[in-house]
Amino acid sequence: MDTINQRIGEMLARVRATRPLIHHITNLVVMNDTANVTLHVGGLPVMAHDVEEVAEMVTHAGALVLNVGTLSPDWVESMLVAGRQANELDIPIVLDPVGAGATQLRTMTNLKLLRSLHIGVVRGNGGEIGALSGAGGEMRGVESIAAPENPLTAARTLAQTYRTVVALTGARDIITDGERGFIVSNGHIWLTTLTGTGCMATTMVAAFAAVERDYLLAAAGGLAMFGLAAELAAEKAHGPASFKTALFDQIYNLTPEQVAAGARIAELEW
Amino acid sequence: MDTINQRIGEMLARVRATRPLIHHITNLVVMNDTANVTLHVGGLPVMAHDVEEVAEMVTHAGALVLNVGTLSPDWVESMLVAGRQANELDIPIVLDPVGAGATQLRTMTNLKLLRSLHIGVVRGNGGEIGALSGAGGEMRGVESIAAPENPLTAARTLAQTYRTVVALTGARDIITDGERGFIVSNGHIWLTTLTGTGCMATTMVAAFAAVERDYLLAAAGGLAMFGLAAELAAEKAHGPASFKTALFDQIYNLTPEQVAAGARIAELEW
Amino acid sequence: MDTINQRIGEMLARVRATRPLIHHITNLVVMNDTANVTLHVGGLPVMAHDVEEVAEMVTHAGALVLNVGTLSPDWVESMLVAGRQANELDIPIVLDPVGAGATQLRTMTNLKLLRSLHIGVVRGNGGEIGALSGAGGEMRGVESIAAPENPLTAARTLAQTYRTVVALTGARDIITDGERGFIVSNGHIWLTTLTGTGCMATTMVAAFAAVERDYLLAAAGGLAMFGLAAELAAEKAHGPASFKTALFDQIYNLTPEQVAAGARIAELEW
Repeated sequence: MDTINQRIGEMLARVRATRPLIHHITNLVVMNDTANVTLHVGGLPVMAHDVEEVAEMVTHAGALVLNVGTLSPDWVESMLVAGRQANELDIPIVLDPVGAGATQLRTMTNLKLLRSLHIGVVRGNGGEIGALSGAGGEMRGVESIAAPENPLTAARTLAQTYRTVVALTGARDIITDGERGFIVSNGHIWLTTLTGTGCMATTMVAAFAAVERDYLLAAAGGLAMFGLAAELAAEKAHGPASFKTALFDQIYNLTPEQVAAGARIAELEW
Repeated sequence: MDTINQRIGEMLARVRATRPLIHHITNLVVMNDTANVTLHVGGLPVMAHDVEEVAEMVTHAGALVLNVGTLSPDWVESMLVAGRQANELDIPIVLDPVGAGATQLRTMTNLKLLRSLHIGVVRGNGGEIGALSGAGGEMRGVESIAAPENPLTAARTLAQTYRTVVALTGARDIITDGERGFIVSNGHIWLTTLTGTGCMATTMVAAFAAVERDYLLAAAGGLAMFGLAAELAAEKAHGPASFKTALFDQIYNLTPEQVAAGARIAELEW
Repeated sequence: MDTINQRIGEMLARVRATRPLIHHITNLVVMNDTANVTLHVGGLPVMAHDVEEVAEMVTHAGALVLNVGTLSPDWVESMLVAGRQANELDIPIVLDPVGAGATQLRTMTNLKLLRSLHIGVVRGNGGEIGALSGAGGEMRGVESIAAPENPLTAARTLAQTYRTVVALTGARDIITDGERGFIVSNGHIWLTTLTGTGCMATTMVAAFAAVERDYLLAAAGGLAMFGLAAELAAEKAHGPASFKTALFDQIYNLTPEQVAAGARIAELEW
C-alpha cells in the first residue's frame, strides 16, 4: 500500500513539473470546469474540435480526452481523427462515455470509438459501463439510476473485451484492466449534487495518464486525488456551489505528500 | 393564499421525490448553470441537441426546455423534432425566447416554435414577450431595456394567441394563461447583475411543470422559489459572483416548508 | 500620469452610464465567464454566431469581440460577416487570437481576420503575438510557454503591419499602436491559474473601446482595471476558484475613482 500511495504522489509531482497538455474533445456543458480542473491539477488544457486541426493539436498533447456528453456527428468524426493520431503516437486516450445507455446514438457512438481506437482508460458511471459491457443497469439522461447487478463483472468484461482499463466511479470506484484491479474509496456524496463531476474525474485521470504508463495506477491516482479533494472541500461547503469552489481550490492546493498520505486505494480481490 | 403556497411546497417535494429528467436544448452560455440549477432543485438534467437522439431522449423526460439563446438552424430543427415528440407524449415544453425582438431571426424562430408546437409555458422578459405579442418593448441584445407599455396586456395577448401560459419576469413576475393569472413578487435586484438568470428561472419552471399539470401554478411556483432563493442569497453576497454561489446553495437547501412559507404569490386582478 | 488615470476612470463611468452592447463571437469554454465580465464592468453581453443574424446584431453593438478559442469554419465565416458590418459602421473590433501558433489552422485563421477586417485591438499573450508577428515564441495549446525574445518589437511589428493596436498581456502588459505605447503593471499571478483570463481581459478592453475612440488608451484602461481587480481579489483567495469569485465581485464593485487611483500605466519608451 505504501508503495502505491507513494507512486501516486510522485505522479502528481510529475504533472506539476512537466505541465502536460490535455487535449479535450468534450461536451459543451463542462468545458469551462474541465479546463479549470486541468490547470488546477497542474496540466495545460486545450479544447479543440475542428477536424482540420485536431490531428495537429493532439501531436503536442500528453493525453487526449474524448467525451460524448453533447455529441454531434462532426465532433465524433473529429474524435476519430484525433484518436487515430493519438494511437499512432502512443498518446493515451481517456474516453468518457457520457449517457451511454440513455439513447441508441450514445451507446452506438461509444462502441464505435471503443472498436475504432485503442482507448487507454474508459471512465464512466455504473449505468454507462453496464450499457457498454452488456451487463445492464439503467440511465436517466446522463445519470446512472441503477448500476448493473455486478459492477465488478461489468467493468472486467468491458476491460477484457476492448483491452482497456475501465474506471467505474460511484460510492466506491472500481478500476480494472480485466486482470488486476483497485478499489478507490475516496470521495464525498456532495459530488452527486454538481453537474460534470464525472467529467472532472475523467480529466484527473487523463492528467495522471499523461505522466504514467501504467494506466491502471494512473486512473486510481487521479480518482483518489479527486475524491480526497472532495472530502476536504466538503468541510467548507454550505451547498453544492460553495462545495465546487472549495473542490477546485483543493485540487490546486493539494500537495504530492498530502495525496500520498490521503489516498485510500486497495487491491481488488475478485 | 395558504392553499397556493401549500401546493407549491408540495410540488417541490414531488420534484425531489421523483427526480424528473429535464431535457434541455439550450444555449451555449448557460448550459452549465442550468444543469446545476436542475440538480439543485431536485431534477436530473440532460443537454442533448443532435437530431438523431432528441426524440428518443425526450421520451424519458418530465419536461423539455427549448432556449434559443445562441440559436443556429440545425439546433432549431432539433427543437422541432424533440418538441413534436414531447407534444405527442404530453410532456410539457417550456420555451425561453432569448433575444426575441433583438434580431429578425430570433423573433421569427420563436414565432415558428410557438406556431409549430404546443408550448406549455413561455418564460421571457418584458422586451421578449412584447416583441412576440406585438405589444412593443425594446431589446438590446438579450436584455430588455424597455418593457411594453402594458406588460399585463402583452402577456395576456400572447397567452391567448398561442393557448399557452406566459411568464413575464421582471421586478414583479406576471404569469397568465390569458384568463387567470398570478403576480409573484419574490426576487432580488442582484439577479440583474448575472448572466443567465432568466434561463435559470426557465429551468425552475420546467422542473415544477414536470410534476404539476396546472402549468400556471407550476410557473408561479418555480419563479417564487427562485426569487426566494435570491432574497436569501443576497444576504451573503459581496458582488455578483458570491451572490451566484449563495443562490445555487440556496436552491439546493430550501425545503418545501420554507418555500411554502416564503412564496409571495397574489392572484391577478385584471 | 494623472491625466491618463483620470481619463480611464471617466471611461469606466461612461461604460456604466451608457451600457454598451458587446457582441461576442467567441469560444465555447469562456462564454459564461465573458458574459458575466461584460455585465460586471457595466456593459450588456450578447453571444450570437449564426450567419443569418450576426450582421443585424452587431448593428446595435458598441464593440465586437472575435475570439477563435474553439474555432470552426462556419463560425469564422460569421466573424467575417459581422466584422465587415462593424467596419462599415465604425464599431471597434477586438480580436483575441487564442492559440495562434499552436496549429496552422489557428495561425492562418487569425491572419485572415487581420487581413480581411480592420481590427481595432488585438489582445493576445506573448506566444500568440509572437506567432502572428513572425517574431517567434512558443505555444502549448492556448498557453504561451515561451514569449518572443523581444516582445516589444513583436507587438510593434504586428501593430504596424496591420495598422492596429496590439495588447500583449503577461506579467506586464505591453500596448502599442506601433508608435506610441503603454506598459500596464497591474495584475496578479493568480490570473495564470484560471482558464479564460485572457479572454476576460479581451472583454474588458472591448467594453472600454466601446466608449473611447483612442483604442490605445481604451486597451490600457481595460487591462489596468482588470489587473487591479485581480490584485484586490488575491487578498481574499484561498485557491483559483475563490479567486475567481472575488475577481468577478471586484470588477463589479470597483468605482471609477478607485480605478483612476489604482491603475499603474506608464508611457512606453522604445
